[in-house]
Amino acid sequence: MSEKLWGGRFAKMTDEMINEFQASIGFDRRMYREDIAGSIAHAAMLAHVGIISAADRASIEKGLRDILAQIDAGTFEFSTALEDIHMNIEKRLTDAIGDAGSRLHTARSRNDQVALDTHMFVRRSIVEVLDHIRELQEALVESSERHREVIMPGYTHLQRAQPILFAHHLMAYFGMLARDFERFQGIYARADIMPLGAGALAGTTLPIDRAFVAKKLNFERIYANSMDAVSDRDYILEFLSAASILMVHLSRLSEEIILWCSREFSFVELDDAHCTGSSMMPQKKNPDVSELVRGKTGRVVGHLMATLTAVKGLPLAYNKDLQEDKEGLFDAIDTVKFSLSVYARLIRGMKVREDVMRRAVEEDFSNATDLADYLVRKGVPFRQAHAISGKAVALCIERGIWLGDMALEDYRMLSPLFDEDIYDAIRPETCVAGRNSYGGTSYEQVRMQLAAAGELIASEKSVCTSLAEKQRVL
Amino acid sequence: MSEKLWGGRFAKMTDEMINEFQASIGFDRRMYREDIAGSIAHAAMLAHVGIISAADRASIEKGLRDILAQIDAGTFEFSTALEDIHMNIEKRLTDAIGDAGSRLHTARSRNDQVALDTHMFVRRSIVEVLDHIRELQEALVESSERHREVIMPGYTHLQRAQPILFAHHLMAYFGMLARDFERFQGIYARADIMPLGAGALAGTTLPIDRAFVAKKLNFERIYANSMDAVSDRDYILEFLSAASILMVHLSRLSEEIILWCSREFSFVELDDAHCTGSSMMPQKKNPDVSELVRGKTGRVVGHLMATLTAVKGLPLAYNKDLQEDKEGLFDAIDTVKFSLSVYARLIRGMKVREDVMRRAVEEDFSNATDLADYLVRKGVPFRQAHAISGKAVALCIERGIWLGDMALEDYRMLSPLFDEDIYDAIRPETCVAGRNSYGGTSYEQVRMQLAAAGELIASEKSVCTSLAEKQRVL
Amino acid sequence: MSEKLWGGRFAKMTDEMINEFQASIGFDRRMYREDIAGSIAHAAMLAHVGIISAADRASIEKGLRDILAQIDAGTFEFSTALEDIHMNIEKRLTDAIGDAGSRLHTARSRNDQVALDTHMFVRRSIVEVLDHIRELQEALVESSERHREVIMPGYTHLQRAQPILFAHHLMAYFGMLARDFERFQGIYARADIMPLGAGALAGTTLPIDRAFVAKKLNFERIYANSMDAVSDRDYILEFLSAASILMVHLSRLSEEIILWCSREFSFVELDDAHCTGSSMMPQKKNPDVSELVRGKTGRVVGHLMATLTAVKGLPLAYNKDLQEDKEGLFDAIDTVKFSLSVYARLIRGMKVREDVMRRAVEEDFSNATDLADYLVRKGVPFRQAHAISGKAVALCIERGIWLGDMALEDYRMLSPLFDEDIYDAIRPETCVAGRNSYGGTSYEQVRMQLAAAGELIASEKSVCTSLAEKQRVL
Amino acid sequence: MSEKLWGGRFAKMTDEMINEFQASIGFDRRMYREDIAGSIAHAAMLAHVGIISAADRASIEKGLRDILAQIDAGTFEFSTALEDIHMNIEKRLTDAIGDAGSRLHTARSRNDQVALDTHMFVRRSIVEVLDHIRELQEALVESSERHREVIMPGYTHLQRAQPILFAHHLMAYFGMLARDFERFQGIYARADIMPLGAGALAGTTLPIDRAFVAKKLNFERIYANSMDAVSDRDYILEFLSAASILMVHLSRLSEEIILWCSREFSFVELDDAHCTGSSMMPQKKNPDVSELVRGKTGRVVGHLMATLTAVKGLPLAYNKDLQEDKEGLFDAIDTVKFSLSVYARLIRGMKVREDVMRRAVEEDFSNATDLADYLVRKGVPFRQAHAISGKAVALCIERGIWLGDMALEDYRMLSPLFDEDIYDAIRPETCVAGRNSYGGTSYEQVRMQLAAAGELIASEKSVCTSLAEKQRVL
Repeated sequence: MSEKLWGGRFAKMTDEMINEFQASIGFDRRMYREDIAGSIAHAAMLAHVGIISAADRASIEKGLRDILAQIDAGTFEFSTALEDIHMNIEKRLTDAIGDAGSRLHTARSRNDQVALDTHMFVRRSIVEVLDHIRELQEALVESSERHREVIMPGYTHLQRAQPILFAHHLMAYFGMLARDFERFQGIYARADIMPLGAGALAGTTLPIDRAFVAKKLNFERIYANSMDAVSDRDYILEFLSAASILMVHLSRLSEEIILWCSREFSFVELDDAHCTGSSMMPQKKNPDVSELVRGKTGRVVGHLMATLTAVKGLPLAYNKDLQEDKEGLFDAIDTVKFSLSVYARLIRGMKVREDVMRRAVEEDFSNATDLADYLVRKGVPFRQAHAISGKAVALCIERGIWLGDMALEDYRMLSPLFDEDIYDAIRPETCVAGRNSYGGTSYEQVRMQLAAAGELIASEKSVCTSLAEKQRVL
Repeated sequence: MSEKLWGGRFAKMTDEMINEFQASIGFDRRMYREDIAGSIAHAAMLAHVGIISAADRASIEKGLRDILAQIDAGTFEFSTALEDIHMNIEKRLTDAIGDAGSRLHTARSRNDQVALDTHMFVRRSIVEVLDHIRELQEALVESSERHREVIMPGYTHLQRAQPILFAHHLMAYFGMLARDFERFQGIYARADIMPLGAGALAGTTLPIDRAFVAKKLNFERIYANSMDAVSDRDYILEFLSAASILMVHLSRLSEEIILWCSREFSFVELDDAHCTGSSMMPQKKNPDVSELVRGKTGRVVGHLMATLTAVKGLPLAYNKDLQEDKEGLFDAIDTVKFSLSVYARLIRGMKVREDVMRRAVEEDFSNATDLADYLVRKGVPFRQAHAISGKAVALCIERGIWLGDMALEDYRMLSPLFDEDIYDAIRPETCVAGRNSYGGTSYEQVRMQLAAAGELIASEKSVCTSLAEKQRVL
Repeated sequence: MSEKLWGGRFAKMTDEMINEFQASIGFDRRMYREDIAGSIAHAAMLAHVGIISAADRASIEKGLRDILAQIDAGTFEFSTALEDIHMNIEKRLTDAIGDAGSRLHTARSRNDQVALDTHMFVRRSIVEVLDHIRELQEALVESSERHREVIMPGYTHLQRAQPILFAHHLMAYFGMLARDFERFQGIYARADIMPLGAGALAGTTLPIDRAFVAKKLNFERIYANSMDAVSDRDYILEFLSAASILMVHLSRLSEEIILWCSREFSFVELDDAHCTGSSMMPQKKNPDVSELVRGKTGRVVGHLMATLTAVKGLPLAYNKDLQEDKEGLFDAIDTVKFSLSVYARLIRGMKVREDVMRRAVEEDFSNATDLADYLVRKGVPFRQAHAISGKAVALCIERGIWLGDMALEDYRMLSPLFDEDIYDAIRPETCVAGRNSYGGTSYEQVRMQLAAAGELIASEKSVCTSLAEKQRVL
Repeated sequence: MSEKLWGGRFAKMTDEMINEFQASIGFDRRMYREDIAGSIAHAAMLAHVGIISAADRASIEKGLRDILAQIDAGTFEFSTALEDIHMNIEKRLTDAIGDAGSRLHTARSRNDQVALDTHMFVRRSIVEVLDHIRELQEALVESSERHREVIMPGYTHLQRAQPILFAHHLMAYFGMLARDFERFQGIYARADIMPLGAGALAGTTLPIDRAFVAKKLNFERIYANSMDAVSDRDYILEFLSAASILMVHLSRLSEEIILWCSREFSFVELDDAHCTGSSMMPQKKNPDVSELVRGKTGRVVGHLMATLTAVKGLPLAYNKDLQEDKEGLFDAIDTVKFSLSVYARLIRGMKVREDVMRRAVEEDFSNATDLADYLVRKGVPFRQAHAISGKAVALCIERGIWLGDMALEDYRMLSPLFDEDIYDAIRPETCVAGRNSYGGTSYEQVRMQLAAAGELIASEKSVCTSLAEKQRVL
């Protein structure tokens, strides 16, 4: 009884087991920094509008900074009976500074307080994710620069399709990550709305100044409707959606690296420091990191599903179901950050086996489109050119040779338009260099992509710096 | 054999059953308008850069417009053997105009073609969704205006918490929808990137002009990497995410309307035209629409999960798995549009039972916070005021009365600071009027919310108009 | 280097960060009991077939039991560098007993070892879940027995439909839980297949005896294919599916209890010990437990989604992605067990407000079907009877009365077949007693349901006992 | 107004748009056969207990069989205004046979009627799925028999691990499908519970005989609680869970076939009739079917998530949300049946390239475990043997040779226990033959697996036949 801050109306203490079931201190303690920053700002506002005295405010701030130091130092003892991080801190504060502490919760409720903390936590986490995205993009650009001339087979349906530059392939992931960056930046804007002042659901009768708090905590916007403020979990759902999409991107990259590490492909070799072996098979060197990241995609998608399901069908305003919004979120944040970070290392340490890639390109039919294009340039309608090229492929398969090995007279049997220059037209280098339309795989286009990527990274860096600055609120 | 446009290399016709299994014409025909617009722009570009003649281009455009007219009129016969909408149209075109038709597919592949169509379709659908969001927002504002003074209990944990204005409650949904609008607008920007010119995966050797096509089709950006262009499904995943969040919002509104229609709440009455009865129980009038919308939330969430699962772990570039991106998307588009539209009607037809709401507010303890706030204003620290108020509630429950019924001396037993003015302080009107902080439920604040809402709707309208303009590409 | 048990082939130590990323010791330590039991059985088998000596076997068993005692006592120190629970235990064993310890891993791989542990863990968890299901069923039966005559409104579409017994309503959940029991029992059979002996993927060249191990560990079946054995995660997916369905059941019960606790329904009152209050609103008593359970449904569904996504598209045999199978599983096990357990308490402590329920039944039209049935019994075709009853309801609504208040002449205007006995026919008790078909809500039928429930619980008890017996393998 | 069967109480016709929104006739018409069979059985029961006359019963049955013939023939016109298949059929029946028709709905409600139809439909679909599972199992056994001696590399982490038999690999999928069969059979038992007689929610006052109907429709069990009967969707959720797991299995097989078809693996060649080409690249032959099945896994998982989400948090009894249970279910049924069926063809037509597989086995280190096992058999503790073998691999890599190429003296440098017989011990055939523990990949074990598989298929066949027999209820 004594410990609870809401016990006035109750005749009985909470059942021990149920206490444990409903306590959130096990996970929401992670937001202690946000909780303290929010309380300091709230107290400053209360003093600013005259609800509490300047002395109380000073005493509250000092008390909270002491608690912050204790938690940072690992000496703070958390109590499950006090349910959550908010109660834990407030109780300790009141124990330490007396009456002034019990004035802190004036004009707010746990509903808007937890919403505030979570907004701040998500906001900060987005900035960290943005930074990790950029870091992986840099690794991709570096590796692409290092292997700018390396040709490999490009695939569709996991069938060799057309020769491409390895750098072009890697840069496709740069493009995905650029959209991830854009997406998270967009979500920042919707996490950056301040809920404090909504009270339990309806606002407060006290003359608070929400703009004051928003300014102190660097919030761009304030919720215009108090019920929306305490019930909104959109920014968490958005974070989980964007995290899921990002992980899907990494799962695709992972699939490729796993393929490339296989003996059959042998396109790359990972650093020993990034692989593990087998407890039974001495020869094994496994691309565990890529497998794990691919597997962890499920985890993040699962958290998205969990939160969508939890919020579905809830009436306004706060319902306890919403407490389920945090663990999945925290785990998703860690997973995304860790995966990006590990991948930046992996890519940097990855050895590209140019010779194997090059050999692969020579021994396939991925230049068949170029054969067709050759005829198109000589005036044959595309559909006919495509059919002639198909026949050439069939002929080669029959004879066990490649297109480059077929005699000119044989080509001429298929079309009189073939000439000696066909052999140059279907060399991998020609094929690659020829795809020189914007966004294509040609040497020139890839050089341009890399240049543009450098500029984008620079601008992302400045976004990160300026957003990071806004997180300093303590 | 004869029908397939890629048959050159094959010795055998496709198995009938497999043909049916892999054909997409059953659903992708829905994008015929986009496919034709894209082809006309592509042909214009081919002529512009000199790959085809002006005559061919004219003949292609005329042929395509004829086909458009046939499909619009319902006279076009689709063939499963021709697999998809692209092949169906191209084959018909070639049958109609001969050689020129077989030049249309020059410098493109189905991979970038289907990506183009889907981008255009999603882009257009977003604009429609935006318009429907705004429409429902308008209905909410209208109903809020109509019942601006109506007081009802506000709930947390489905327990009565504090008196609020009905308009304030409705406007919480306005806020959610405003974020939905913002979100879909953000996605528009990432759907508005042109993939055409990526070819199968690597670009093309022909001297195409992607910017020309982008301008014709009103695309703001062009994919900078051809492999990314044909593999990217982010914009679909984003659409489904935003649609899921939107449906979660509607599921919450649905839950409330279902509650309010129950005999126990009886807060609103739906129009007979928006309900159904029972085949067995003659007295029933069921809020089917709200139940269905709540149920359909699952449907959209399911499509999101389906697509995330499908894309997970796919190597670059195109894989046939990606064909699975469409049916769920189409269904989600329809569901979201229909749900928003139906809800706008429902809200407009909904009768609000002010008397019932008012009675509810009088017979509960939702003014207990105001009791505490009263003491806070007299200098009692919040935690003590909260405890006194809790005791007052417990006393009333014991005696079977409400806070307004308790004698002043009884109040004074709890705290000498209570005075005659306590009775006015806990009247519902006072409670509501008092929550006058920004975003609170007071009459003044709600008036301000409604004014701001009107301005937002106006600006949304102009966004819709200007985006709708951009969809006119035929 | 030194610590790793697979390091022979590697030139470099594992990157610290990647070590942390891929280590599973943080969560798989939970299976230490299973790991040790499995290793003792494995060693016994190795000795039995002569691969290791009896002395080695004895020394291994002693060493493992020491480790077990250390872990139980909390004195065992886990190392992240040793990756997982298997390596941690094996390393410690070898440190303690020397050579004999390094013989333990003969003829097995971590792949079949972890599969064995997980099977055993799931098996045991199923037995615990079965027991908790039965416990909640008992609580439901007790509460039903206690309120066997209580009448309440039955709902469809959350509209009052027909009067029912409260016991009948509760027993619907008994039926759901009975299927949950059946379902988990079925899954037990598919968790009860032994993978050990599959080696890394292909079996072993050593003359092991899998049946010997299976018998020692009480496994009913042995995997017939070694690759399937190490790759199979069906039993985990099945567990998560059944857990999701069970949580959906509890979410429905939760929704009802939340409704019933609302001031509008007021059908039940929860024990103070099972509720919490508000930090701001002194009058609040919130059904947190039910809200949390409803919310946690999402969590379990999320884990199912996560695991389905992780396994999708993995080639045979073991891939590191499969390591992601455990955390969600463990959390789902805890959530399901905790939710069932908490609910048994809640139901036992729940006060049913018979008077409120009874009043609710009198003031509605839920006897309208009985009016129609009355006419059917007098020979009116159902559809006409339904229509007449509908008109009677409309008339009453117009006049603001209930069916029991309408004069006989008014009834006769609608149909001459109405007689004085109509008033008895539409009394709640008559309505309830009359629904006496099998499975109906009549007093007699509910008595029969409760009797059958008692028998089912008894048989479930014996299932639990006999399965629990099988888990004693240490 | 006139068309609706529940219109008595309503003052207004249903809004056109809302009618369309809530009508289910677009998809539930698919259950017309079940609806008619159920109605015939219901009428027979009504006559049996004397509620309707024998003449009415005969007239109803004749009328329903006429309607059945019309729907089978495609001449029946469905009306959206009549909402669903039940109303469509009943209205037509009444139009055709008059009063007798309007007696059919006596003692039932749409709630128990739709539940009955769906149970029957799911039951029948399970039987079809069982049959398709068995069919694919047969194809796997056939292909395994045909290639019983073919050796290939076995993989873990997509790294070559140990040599295995191709038949052993395929048979791992047989094992998965065997569990799928078991699972669906288990679900049959929970779909095979009859809901009819539950009425809207509470049973009926009329003296019906549920056992009579159950017997006529071959139901094993009857719901013991009427509210559970109309609210239960477990059997649908279970079907979707089992379908998801099955699709995950097929997704894994698909991944492997896609890998094996790649130029890098080249382990198999699909029949031309089961592949498609490219509209742009003439050389392409794509394993579309496998890609599509892999992609469709998401679809089925999505339907599971949709339905779990829809049912979550619904109070008893029927709510309109539950109407959302059908479309996903139907689509999942089709997808599963089609995927299994297509796969049986694919496997039958798949050419296995023994030479390529064999070459792959020779050129890798997948015999390194056998090197270690060789030492273990000579008394070396496993962990030391593993380390020595790891060094041997490292040495070979350094020299660019395989284990079979290393000189004996080099082996003896690593351990004096090596002898001339080491070369035979690490030949692929020896490696394979040696893994002769139960469930291993040895020739003998695989022969035993195939024999057991034949027996299982035979018993599955008889299950299918006997269950199919039970579906004949018309």
